Amino acid sequence: MNLLLMSNSTAPGRGLLEHAHSVLADVLSGVRTVTFVPFALADHDAYTQIFTNALKPLGLDVVGAHTGDPARLVSDAEAVFVGGGNTFRLVKAVHEHGLIDIIRQRTDQGMPYIGSSAGTNIAAPTMRTTNDMPIVQPTTFDTLGLIPFQINPHYVDPAPGDSHMGETREQRILQFLEENDVAVVGLREGTWLRREDGTLRLGGVEAGGRLFRRGAEPADLAPGADLSDLLEFAPRFDS
Amino acid sequence: MNLLLMSNSTAPGRGLLEHAHSVLADVLSGVRTVTFVPFALADHDAYTQIFTNALKPLGLDVVGAHTGDPARLVSDAEAVFVGGGNTFRLVKAVHEHGLIDIIRQRTDQGMPYIGSSAGTNIAAPTMRTTNDMPIVQPTTFDTLGLIPFQINPHYVDPAPGDSHMGETREQRILQFLEENDVAVVGLREGTWLRREDGTLRLGGVEAGGRLFRRGAEPADLAPGADLSDLLEFAPRFDS
Repeated sequence: MNLLLMSNSTAPGRGLLEHAHSVLADVLSGVRTVTFVPFALADHDAYTQIFTNALKPLGLDVVGAHTGDPARLVSDAEAVFVGGGNTFRLVKAVHEHGLIDIIRQRTDQGMPYIGSSAGTNIAAPTMRTTNDMPIVQPTTFDTLGLIPFQINPHYVDPAPGDSHMGETREQRILQFLEENDVAVVGLREGTWLRREDGTLRLGGVEAGGRLFRRGAEPADLAPGADLSDLLEFAPRFDS
Repeated sequence: MNLLLMSNSTAPGRGLLEHAHSVLADVLSGVRTVTFVPFALADHDAYTQIFTNALKPLGLDVVGAHTGDPARLVSDAEAVFVGGGNTFRLVKAVHEHGLIDIIRQRTDQGMPYIGSSAGTNIAAPTMRTTNDMPIVQPTTFDTLGLIPFQINPHYVDPAPGDSHMGETREQRILQFLEENDVAVVGLREGTWLRREDGTLRLGGVEAGGRLFRRGAEPADLAPGADLSDLLEFAPRFDS
């Protein structure tokens, strides 16, 4: 397993993927062409072009998974990058294109998988900890399960003095834990998880992440934290 | 039809429902007991108690829909108040308890329906414009359809200087419009929609709302705005 699961693709004040050049070069070592999965946004051509430009400085070519039969393109890929956008739209599309089993099989064989935001959400067993609006209805919330716990990308702490009366992100995740006994890693902007087989580490900017488990106080996670124990987690979802 | 669809149940700096006492007295004129639907939160007893206390100053008694057969209790209700919390949990429960058809039928006959947050989301044709996390998977996103357009409760404008890299609320609603040709009313905190048969008005605090339609610039809505035209809207959802 060779996974890079990013909270988001842009750190504040930096260009697209700039904050992650070094870890991308590591994950994609030996890769020449990346297959980009653009289904989380509506304009697949424009979205693929943006990532083509962003990966060029790393000497990488990009092909959009929408430019032919997506199942064939992903099956033959050297590496897959699943971009962010709307997770419900992405999940509907990856099921409709039959990509779930193919990505599971290829990542088991060592194909690098990179996700950002929605692309990171679908690496978890389900999409139940996405922040996105349910603009379309997928047939199921089940996703890739490349890790046995959930991720919440774009994790934000409660803002002091915020007059918004909706739930904070922490309250939402605690509601998830009321229904499901599954660990959740909140990834603050500019951070990521890096899985290499049985090893899992938090990387990226100083903000780090936050770990939520049923029956335990939420705990901050510092960059570099070794989270390999989470790969042994046995998730239990509400039906 | 006698509906009160509130963005949320508490205005900043006020007690629960305090900002809406006058409109609640109007909607619930002649009602002695309100049936409270607490399924959006996990602790039904505690949640019902909170609303029992909040409605007491209006001379109203409250019975929780979970204290017996929910279908029977809603069927026999003088008025229904559906509280906020997690919309996915609420939608799963109202379908499992068979409440959809009963609420449609009773509201058609004039029974007052009050929703707050998640309870307002489910008054729309679908839950596709909720802000909530999909912590459980309902069998369908379809909801009551007491109005032919969507509502986004807790609507917030983009905050200047926000370092959060996720989508703004406006961007999320524009993504909804990419997939569905359905009007969306964003209700800012402390505002509500009041439907009396063929009349629909925006009420509540000065912040007002915001109207989104495919192919049109989003437009602010002032308190008191007459939105009755929206009741003629013919929604078209993505499959």
